[in-house]
Amino acid sequence: MVLYIIGLGLHDEKDVTVRGLELIKSSSNVFLEAYTSILSVGKERLESFYGRNDIVIADRDFVECHAEEIYVPAKDGDVSFLVVGDPVCATTHSDIMIRAREAGVKVELVHNASAMGAAGCCGLQLYNFGQTISIPYFDDNWKPTSFYPKIKYNRLGGMHTLCLLDIKVKEPDFEAMKRGKIVYLPPRFMSVNVAAEQLIESEEIRKGKAYNPQSTLCVGLARLGQPDQCIIAGTLEELKEQDFGAPLHCVIICGEVHDMELEALRPYLIEGSKCVVDAEGSLFDREALEQNDDK
Amino acid sequence: MVLYIIGLGLHDEKDVTVRGLELIKSSSNVFLEAYTSILSVGKERLESFYGRNDIVIADRDFVECHAEEIYVPAKDGDVSFLVVGDPVCATTHSDIMIRAREAGVKVELVHNASAMGAAGCCGLQLYNFGQTISIPYFDDNWKPTSFYPKIKYNRLGGMHTLCLLDIKVKEPDFEAMKRGKIVYLPPRFMSVNVAAEQLIESEEIRKGKAYNPQSTLCVGLARLGQPDQCIIAGTLEELKEQDFGAPLHCVIICGEVHDMELEALRPYLIEGSKCVVDAEGSLFDREALEQNDDK
Repeated sequence: MVLYIIGLGLHDEKDVTVRGLELIKSSSNVFLEAYTSILSVGKERLESFYGRNDIVIADRDFVECHAEEIYVPAKDGDVSFLVVGDPVCATTHSDIMIRAREAGVKVELVHNASAMGAAGCCGLQLYNFGQTISIPYFDDNWKPTSFYPKIKYNRLGGMHTLCLLDIKVKEPDFEAMKRGKIVYLPPRFMSVNVAAEQLIESEEIRKGKAYNPQSTLCVGLARLGQPDQCIIAGTLEELKEQDFGAPLHCVIICGEVHDMELEALRPYLIEGSKCVVDAEGSLFDREALEQNDDK
Repeated sequence: MVLYIIGLGLHDEKDVTVRGLELIKSSSNVFLEAYTSILSVGKERLESFYGRNDIVIADRDFVECHAEEIYVPAKDGDVSFLVVGDPVCATTHSDIMIRAREAGVKVELVHNASAMGAAGCCGLQLYNFGQTISIPYFDDNWKPTSFYPKIKYNRLGGMHTLCLLDIKVKEPDFEAMKRGKIVYLPPRFMSVNVAAEQLIESEEIRKGKAYNPQSTLCVGLARLGQPDQCIIAGTLEELKEQDFGAPLHCVIICGEVHDMELEALRPYLIEGSKCVVDAEGSLFDREALEQNDDK
């Protein structure tokens, strides 16, 4: 018996692979991981398409504290654990895989599209991406910018940086809890606009010239892999003012942009954008970046 | 009418998404890109699964020199252009997309799994990968090592490097051509073994200590996303001697390996491997790497 960790892709119920669909239909138990990403459709639509009405939603607490409820049943029958995107891309489910294998349960992955791959649809070559960063929500007291030196290192090496944006699902409402009630806040998905503002603020805090909010080419992407996906390229100051619509959003901070990339990206560039084009014609200002190389 | 560029995933005819399958069935024309990667099944199996017997193989010459034969028909009816993996990951089909759009043809992508995402199945976090490199076949006169400084830059930043390995499909046989015949050599797919040898040779040529063939942790991967995929971790000297079986293969040169990564990777590690574990317990020898920082 096997624990199948099955990627659902990025859009709707039809993004599952044929192999994944067959496994879901024939599994004894089906769990849906529902806290690190979202599809454009809900559980009911998936259930109707899969022809079963017993999908169990697995939130963060369930996966992190009760993972055995997912993999132990795989000793007696096949279990499908469904995740948006790919099982090992943006969110890696290493922990449940390790624990399942330690318990003697065979684990198999069914891969699918992920945001980390689909980001290449804007015309930038995935080859040229450096390490991926995550941008958490800032608040008045907590503005963690540990991603900042990673962007700088990527850019000094000419590489693009994919920024995944914070998702808050089923966050406890601490005010209500003080009154003895368990209440969850509505889900929040960081927009390109908020990410751009926080990136601008991070540059003000760090002052390392990792990027220039007025001139570095960036790309805002929304609903990657969905029919109404939205791609807009421009500076952070420009992207901050654009409307990207519904979640999920992500941002790319460009490094060195090659000719073919620029050609593929051009249709998405804001008209009259103030992106800097350097002497060689590429959208990359090495001189500005190296002026202050304190990583 | 639309040109759909449809990812087929990594294994067989059932790795297509349900959406992709519907589009293939309803398209007027179907082309299969057959020179940058391979599935474990051939055209006949795909045709039988799709219920159509008219798939046209598009080799490199066809896609690069006669792309209009693919996208012009999309003015009159939907066209599916099938690619192994994802349309914009390991191989980007930017050129045909740009040309199709210039010709007024609408282009849509159907994403899928790619080697660049599936490589995360070995336990290394995709977040921590830097730029991807390609290793071409060396011969006696031509040993291009332009990938070498990229590995070094990735590793100095603590990042892993995914190495995609050369594929030679439909290469002309120059000896036969001298005799006036057009003959193609049998296809060649670089193995982990050849890649490891060439990486060892590259270190001897460049002498930059980007990695140490005797101590740097690397991972060899074969047939990613297929039921018989093979993952073995060890040094380049060790991987060179392992048997990975049928293609496709790729290699990862590790940067800094975090605890969770090491735990997930451990089942694949060669027993008694000579990988260096540094003072903090991680498989990353920063001291050796920085001794000779001439990138």
